[in-house]
Amino acid sequence: MRTDIFVKKNTMKRITLVMNCPDQKGIIAAVTNYIHGNNGNIVYIDQYVDRVNSIFFMRVECEIAENHQGIEHFKTNFIDSIGNEFQLEIDIYLNNALPKMALFVSKYDHCLYDILARYQSGELAVEIPFILSNHLDLKNIAERFDIPFYHLPVSKENKKEAEQKQLKLLQEHQVDFIVLARYMQIISKDLIQHYPNKIINIHHSFLPAFPGAKPYHSAYERGVKIIGATSHYVTEELDAGPIIEQNTTHVSHLNSIDDFIAKGRDLERIVLSKALQLHVARKVMVYQNKTVVFS
Amino acid sequence: MRTDIFVKKNTMKRITLVMNCPDQKGIIAAVTNYIHGNNGNIVYIDQYVDRVNSIFFMRVECEIAENHQGIEHFKTNFIDSIGNEFQLEIDIYLNNALPKMALFVSKYDHCLYDILARYQSGELAVEIPFILSNHLDLKNIAERFDIPFYHLPVSKENKKEAEQKQLKLLQEHQVDFIVLARYMQIISKDLIQHYPNKIINIHHSFLPAFPGAKPYHSAYERGVKIIGATSHYVTEELDAGPIIEQNTTHVSHLNSIDDFIAKGRDLERIVLSKALQLHVARKVMVYQNKTVVFS
Amino acid sequence: MRTDIFVKKNTMKRITLVMNCPDQKGIIAAVTNYIHGNNGNIVYIDQYVDRVNSIFFMRVECEIAENHQGIEHFKTNFIDSIGNEFQLEIDIYLNNALPKMALFVSKYDHCLYDILARYQSGELAVEIPFILSNHLDLKNIAERFDIPFYHLPVSKENKKEAEQKQLKLLQEHQVDFIVLARYMQIISKDLIQHYPNKIINIHHSFLPAFPGAKPYHSAYERGVKIIGATSHYVTEELDAGPIIEQNTTHVSHLNSIDDFIAKGRDLERIVLSKALQLHVARKVMVYQNKTVVFS
Amino acid sequence: MRTDIFVKKNTMKRITLVMNCPDQKGIIAAVTNYIHGNNGNIVYIDQYVDRVNSIFFMRVECEIAENHQGIEHFKTNFIDSIGNEFQLEIDIYLNNALPKMALFVSKYDHCLYDILARYQSGELAVEIPFILSNHLDLKNIAERFDIPFYHLPVSKENKKEAEQKQLKLLQEHQVDFIVLARYMQIISKDLIQHYPNKIINIHHSFLPAFPGAKPYHSAYERGVKIIGATSHYVTEELDAGPIIEQNTTHVSHLNSIDDFIAKGRDLERIVLSKALQLHVARKVMVYQNKTVVFS
Repeated sequence: MRTDIFVKKNTMKRITLVMNCPDQKGIIAAVTNYIHGNNGNIVYIDQYVDRVNSIFFMRVECEIAENHQGIEHFKTNFIDSIGNEFQLEIDIYLNNALPKMALFVSKYDHCLYDILARYQSGELAVEIPFILSNHLDLKNIAERFDIPFYHLPVSKENKKEAEQKQLKLLQEHQVDFIVLARYMQIISKDLIQHYPNKIINIHHSFLPAFPGAKPYHSAYERGVKIIGATSHYVTEELDAGPIIEQNTTHVSHLNSIDDFIAKGRDLERIVLSKALQLHVARKVMVYQNKTVVFS
Repeated sequence: MRTDIFVKKNTMKRITLVMNCPDQKGIIAAVTNYIHGNNGNIVYIDQYVDRVNSIFFMRVECEIAENHQGIEHFKTNFIDSIGNEFQLEIDIYLNNALPKMALFVSKYDHCLYDILARYQSGELAVEIPFILSNHLDLKNIAERFDIPFYHLPVSKENKKEAEQKQLKLLQEHQVDFIVLARYMQIISKDLIQHYPNKIINIHHSFLPAFPGAKPYHSAYERGVKIIGATSHYVTEELDAGPIIEQNTTHVSHLNSIDDFIAKGRDLERIVLSKALQLHVARKVMVYQNKTVVFS
Repeated sequence: MRTDIFVKKNTMKRITLVMNCPDQKGIIAAVTNYIHGNNGNIVYIDQYVDRVNSIFFMRVECEIAENHQGIEHFKTNFIDSIGNEFQLEIDIYLNNALPKMALFVSKYDHCLYDILARYQSGELAVEIPFILSNHLDLKNIAERFDIPFYHLPVSKENKKEAEQKQLKLLQEHQVDFIVLARYMQIISKDLIQHYPNKIINIHHSFLPAFPGAKPYHSAYERGVKIIGATSHYVTEELDAGPIIEQNTTHVSHLNSIDDFIAKGRDLERIVLSKALQLHVARKVMVYQNKTVVFS
Repeated sequence: MRTDIFVKKNTMKRITLVMNCPDQKGIIAAVTNYIHGNNGNIVYIDQYVDRVNSIFFMRVECEIAENHQGIEHFKTNFIDSIGNEFQLEIDIYLNNALPKMALFVSKYDHCLYDILARYQSGELAVEIPFILSNHLDLKNIAERFDIPFYHLPVSKENKKEAEQKQLKLLQEHQVDFIVLARYMQIISKDLIQHYPNKIINIHHSFLPAFPGAKPYHSAYERGVKIIGATSHYVTEELDAGPIIEQNTTHVSHLNSIDDFIAKGRDLERIVLSKALQLHVARKVMVYQNKTVVFS
């Protein structure tokens, strides 16, 4: 059994396979054999076994012939050949296809500027179909970077309706994932269910310390000597989703709440952009409300 | 008004003044003037104002004449001259007097080894009158370093009695402060009241995340990407006392709970020994369940 | 002797005094007394003594009456009263006066974007009279942020002339200090002498390791496990000026030179912006090719 | 072709395979297949390709039957089966065999204490046949931990002879690798050639900055804001061998040279012990004066 996906031609393209299955003997040999046996060239392999839960995770980057019959065809053959035998769940991506990332913001501009600068310079390999906000404060930044801006105010009264509009926008633009770049609204259950593990938030504390509103104020009150930031996938429980990336920095009694906020901005920028890079590179795998993050 | 404490003689000694008072104009000028006017030489000055609560803090190291009439005499004169006027609370220490530090341990040896190595090399300027434990596991380490070891098992039945023995030991040895170097027992209210802000604990999480037992297990369950350690003064509320020092390190999905524990040991060693250094140098001031830590 | 600078009126303004002198007894008392005696209110005081070289440094923030006779008048009185006696060198600044900062760039945009975002949000309290570049690549960014852009190509032939034009621009715009935000040209001795300790560079290594060109390549060759960035004042010796701020991050064998460069960009952003904040707040004092940096 | 090493029995043991070869297609499949085909169970796999030099590296931990015919037998079969075809260089280790580690020290005790505490607690899985020193200062520490201590003074006159004695001791005790825990003597070319990539040094700077003697003094002179420590394999060029692990910490103008040294001690402890852990776990592979360090 072989697919023509790997038939050697002049040019090659790269694909990424992300998979997991119950841990079992021979799984690595089976996958590497299959790719090798079909003229694929493994460029990078990452694997991990959660021994407590006996789950096997693997991410493989490989080069394949340019003119194959398509990802879907390959996936079907792969599953027929070894997927079913090993109960594999697998996703396959073309490395040069840019995912579509929607940005939700409110009034804070530091994460937005940071993301747009990385996007502009090519450091962040995505398309940004639009920026959405419940306020008008950051409209001019969107304009500066020539990105469509949608103003969608949210109040108690129109919350349901506003979410319907959000969903419509996301679907019309075929958005792949959403970034809450300090978007100060709680995302509805309905929207989360449409984008499971595809909504990335930046929370301004080292979770699980200080979930919810005003974490810098709480950190100041408690007299901590470190503050942090956490990027995680949004789940229905507030600030309790799978953590992608965290970082911390030192503070002292000299620092006011405003200093906490200013230092925190640098943390938030770094942590969120790192999480986005990892997500875009398909290096994050979610299970049991935790993440496997290949480096 | 002047005291002879500062009269220049051949040799000088160093003292440290630690004070706080309601914030008010002229306090720095008054203190520096007083010392200067009495032939003292200010070596180092640290000051901080909590503007929210209008409290002024200062720590001054200065050189004074060797043959003065004593710390108590100086303190009396200082208070008569400016202390009362500014409502100053003040403590004065001779820099070369070694504080007496009691060590409470249970079964983990990493913090104990680290402290004893620093003590032995002179890095930690204290006397260690004794090591106390509710277990016998670390007795041989105490013997290796020629430090008296008291085995004081604690059970539900004898808890009251055991604490009385602890207190007696502490008082007999004129202990200045106590270090809980992974001592796995909760300290009683009574003992805490005898040593307010003089019992230093190391907790193996970045508080306020994961207080109480088994924080590394909880951190693993939550899937955090950083773990931490916190050194704090013990108060009646568990793991909620004023924080002296914290630090964190990165972990990943690759790390098992045992890895968390191993990485944590390095954090605990560094954080606790830093907190001890700061406490011994009289650089930590406590108020409103927070600390001012001069550097 | 007193000046009317401190006469209490309805409103107050803040000034910052930055001074140094040979270390001597009573200097702190003299300065704090003078300010207190003239109705000034000390808000923050930082002091440091280099005991090896016997130099005293102090930075004082204080509140003074709004309608004083001006900084220059105050300075004169201060010098007459105590400055001469203690051989003080002193600079005095009005806290709410924005310094004028010129930006020199070439082709890399990451530091430029970062600085402009912080400028735009008010986080960086400066005026930016212009951006100057030897290339046209970043012109559109300047336009996006509505900041004048000067294109001044530099070649071996026109170097002298180009520098004259730079100097003219700087003087016309009354520039206070210059930031080399990855400006890929060596600054001439002449320009440096016009702006001593006022030209801030970001170098992409942890100096003194890897000075000069292509430090990330050299770091990769050497197989280091950490890379760094250094912000320093420009002096005539290349990459050897007084260091303001440094930071490092971990790398591994997995990281290619491109990864080093990408990780380095985040370091450069953070290190340069921190150095700018410190410089703007007058917290950096230079002597003997080193810096005192108050926190 | 199969070996009986993998024949399933009641109990299993773990072995670690460390290999490298010219990069080529199918190598991962070949190795994993071989192990799988011989009833081995791959527990952990790490792989890396240096694309610049086209070298493939792999480290595999796997479980094999307890009663196999021995490592050497397995190695022979492995090489016959696939080793020659792929030009593999391979080392194979029994995971539960403790390597013999000799400690060379001079007068500083902090690294020695740290290593011995980790050794004593089982954190560092080695045997320590002896501690060797050119001074007597640390003899009592060796005695405290019941480890043989050899005093071997080194002078210009007896250097050759002293090295012969060192070599004899090392060989008599079948030492696997040597740790220079702040041993203040330069190791001779002859000794290095007997233990290539098996002598681990801790240098008290972030190399390549400040090689040679008194790096903390040089760092202080230069006015750096970070100091570091580096653990590396010893080669003939001083402080220029392959780097295993590095770390840094912040310093400021407040820190004297003594403070640098004290802060550095904590770095040295952490960096050296991390390097030892990595070496003992066979996670460090050396080529072209650089290291691949699996995590």
